[in-house]
Amino acid sequence: MVFPGSTEEVAAVLQLATQRGVPVIPRGAGSNLCAGTVALQGGIVLALTRLDRILELSPSELLARVQPGVTSAALASAAAAEDLLWAPDPGSRTVATVGGTIATCAGGLRGLKYGVTRNYVLGLEAVLPTGEVIRTGGRLNKDVAGYDLTRLLTGSEGTLAVITEATVALRPAPETTGTGVAYFPTLADAGRAVAAIIAGGLLPATLEFLDRTCVNAVEDFAHLGLRTDAGALLLFGDDGEPDATQAALARMSDACVVAGALEVTTAAQVTEAEALLAARRCTLPALSRLGALTILEDATVPRPRIAEMVERIGGIADRYSVPIATFGHAGDGNLHPTCVLQSPDDTEAVQRAELAFKDIFAAALELDGTITGEHGVGAAKLPYLAQQLGQAQMSLLRRLKAAFDPAGILNPGKLGS
Amino acid sequence: MVFPGSTEEVAAVLQLATQRGVPVIPRGAGSNLCAGTVALQGGIVLALTRLDRILELSPSELLARVQPGVTSAALASAAAAEDLLWAPDPGSRTVATVGGTIATCAGGLRGLKYGVTRNYVLGLEAVLPTGEVIRTGGRLNKDVAGYDLTRLLTGSEGTLAVITEATVALRPAPETTGTGVAYFPTLADAGRAVAAIIAGGLLPATLEFLDRTCVNAVEDFAHLGLRTDAGALLLFGDDGEPDATQAALARMSDACVVAGALEVTTAAQVTEAEALLAARRCTLPALSRLGALTILEDATVPRPRIAEMVERIGGIADRYSVPIATFGHAGDGNLHPTCVLQSPDDTEAVQRAELAFKDIFAAALELDGTITGEHGVGAAKLPYLAQQLGQAQMSLLRRLKAAFDPAGILNPGKLGS
Repeated sequence: MVFPGSTEEVAAVLQLATQRGVPVIPRGAGSNLCAGTVALQGGIVLALTRLDRILELSPSELLARVQPGVTSAALASAAAAEDLLWAPDPGSRTVATVGGTIATCAGGLRGLKYGVTRNYVLGLEAVLPTGEVIRTGGRLNKDVAGYDLTRLLTGSEGTLAVITEATVALRPAPETTGTGVAYFPTLADAGRAVAAIIAGGLLPATLEFLDRTCVNAVEDFAHLGLRTDAGALLLFGDDGEPDATQAALARMSDACVVAGALEVTTAAQVTEAEALLAARRCTLPALSRLGALTILEDATVPRPRIAEMVERIGGIADRYSVPIATFGHAGDGNLHPTCVLQSPDDTEAVQRAELAFKDIFAAALELDGTITGEHGVGAAKLPYLAQQLGQAQMSLLRRLKAAFDPAGILNPGKLGS
Repeated sequence: MVFPGSTEEVAAVLQLATQRGVPVIPRGAGSNLCAGTVALQGGIVLALTRLDRILELSPSELLARVQPGVTSAALASAAAAEDLLWAPDPGSRTVATVGGTIATCAGGLRGLKYGVTRNYVLGLEAVLPTGEVIRTGGRLNKDVAGYDLTRLLTGSEGTLAVITEATVALRPAPETTGTGVAYFPTLADAGRAVAAIIAGGLLPATLEFLDRTCVNAVEDFAHLGLRTDAGALLLFGDDGEPDATQAALARMSDACVVAGALEVTTAAQVTEAEALLAARRCTLPALSRLGALTILEDATVPRPRIAEMVERIGGIADRYSVPIATFGHAGDGNLHPTCVLQSPDDTEAVQRAELAFKDIFAAALELDGTITGEHGVGAAKLPYLAQQLGQAQMSLLRRLKAAFDPAGILNPGKLGS
């Protein structure tokens, strides 16, 4: 493991690695969920955690310039102190680095209204595997000078270049945030509520759903007084100007009632709203407590097909006799089917789970979806990528990889391999 | 010129062109402002205007699937009929095609609040120069399966592949739109108002400025009763929920007054607001009437440096004795310095104008800006690109170009050359 302290040190390591043909695996917090930073072929793990400074935060330009090792939460706090919002909001934000957030084009809870990480990267300093330093984009929202390398590096999972500095866009912090919770007999009912909310012209900041297993796990974990007898929970919310936010919340409540909600409440206090969002954020740790091995996926489908996809996941889980709970970002069609097994040593059960997820990916593609909405390809989903992209595009990805990394040293066995 | 009627015909043309080494210049309406579709080396101009159908418009998924030859205005109308907004808003939108809008990553008047074209492209069908058809992205906001070819093709100016279909994101149409106009003694005063508006936590839908020459040209052209004695006009506006929009408009008016506005009015009626925006849109045609040759540029700088940049443009115009008027998108720092000359045959004046723009590009780069915010590189700005990107990145662009287009047939002499 190498912990560089400067762009120059990153460049020196990469140049040497290219000369000697040694693999280099760039790594932030390693909190990705796709085996994206596993050193499959050994080599140098290049941990960028020492480069952890916020170099600049400009309220007048609505931007920050940061080193890659700053955590997403630290940037969000620094921005909040200036009444600004760092919008990308992955579940792992307390540990995830901004460099990793960019390298994986992380999503999160605010995707529908605010978009994903790629919408917030203005410019990058990056070191090519051959040791040359490039600066892409800059400080501007509008900049079309050259191919969009800023976005090409965003989500490239450390396979094209090593990000050593990022200029990211911030937004004015919303004046208020409102959150509500609705319980439904089934996930299909919740899906109808989501469809009605969007059809009503709203673009909510929050639209999260949990199935019954997830709600029960979260309640056991966090003791929030959640109702555990319903088939699905929908967390909805918006932010912005106070009156508009309240009006949006009221319209979302109404849509839930019309769609057959068993119960709808809106949080009267900010602390209450934050507790609800915190509950959603702890779904994965809460589920993980149910067994020794947790397999989390993020097959994603068009919003109107969520109910169909959830039904298919249920059928697949039954077919392979594996327990799969599902939660996710309803506004994005971004599902997180999660399988919790009692022991990683039960190879027969692990194999059944793997077959189940293979079918889940195929189902997502059949419904015009993707094998990965926000977790990335890494080593975990590379075997499924050709099914989605086709051979012509896979070959093109390899040619692009070679244009950046002629010696193939950067994160081998991942994207572009 | 070839007018293909299907993806298959595009593929056949490209395959043949690659085999025979014949240049192919993909073209929509040809309304770009960077000589991006000029057939510098002859060859086949591939006009995509016959592929002009809206294939699908889905309110529940907030997206449209279109052929590349649909005009931006036609898509905007079709979306508006479903209470949806097609946000990209280039000045040429009545003629510009969606394919061209994507190929140039067009900006427009709503960039600050709504972003630019790249924020609205979900997926593309494109034909590689070798004739293979790829499909990038899809129908989802969240999709990280593979390198972000969707964004790499967006803004690639027809040099990497030919776009034959696009899936684009729409938004709920705002309930109301409000617009106001403020006159200032100088552009620097208007710049202070813009800074105060952003510092106040607003992200307005409209923040456009015109200098005195532009205001006079627009008034002569459109007879709107604009005040022609002020140094600068600032058009400001927002959209959304009615009360929030009115509140934002009031705060912007106040900021203008505090910054020293001579006069501030807000449009009471939608028709009045539309007339103001229409006036802004006709700035370029209005200026063009002043002479026989119009040279329009789009050097862009960080928002707080607009006043400094405008001052430098003034100095440069004086130095080379050329008349340069400036208007643009203040929220994006996106300036449009425009030089109108009496005759294209006055080679000495044209040469002085070219030297002036060379200095303007250098000034933009000195102020952390870009040589092109939204018009593109094309043939017009390719000579200046290395100054911004550096040689290492220029070489990388060429390697990327070769990864897509080994025979170098697509739009030669432009980006990637």
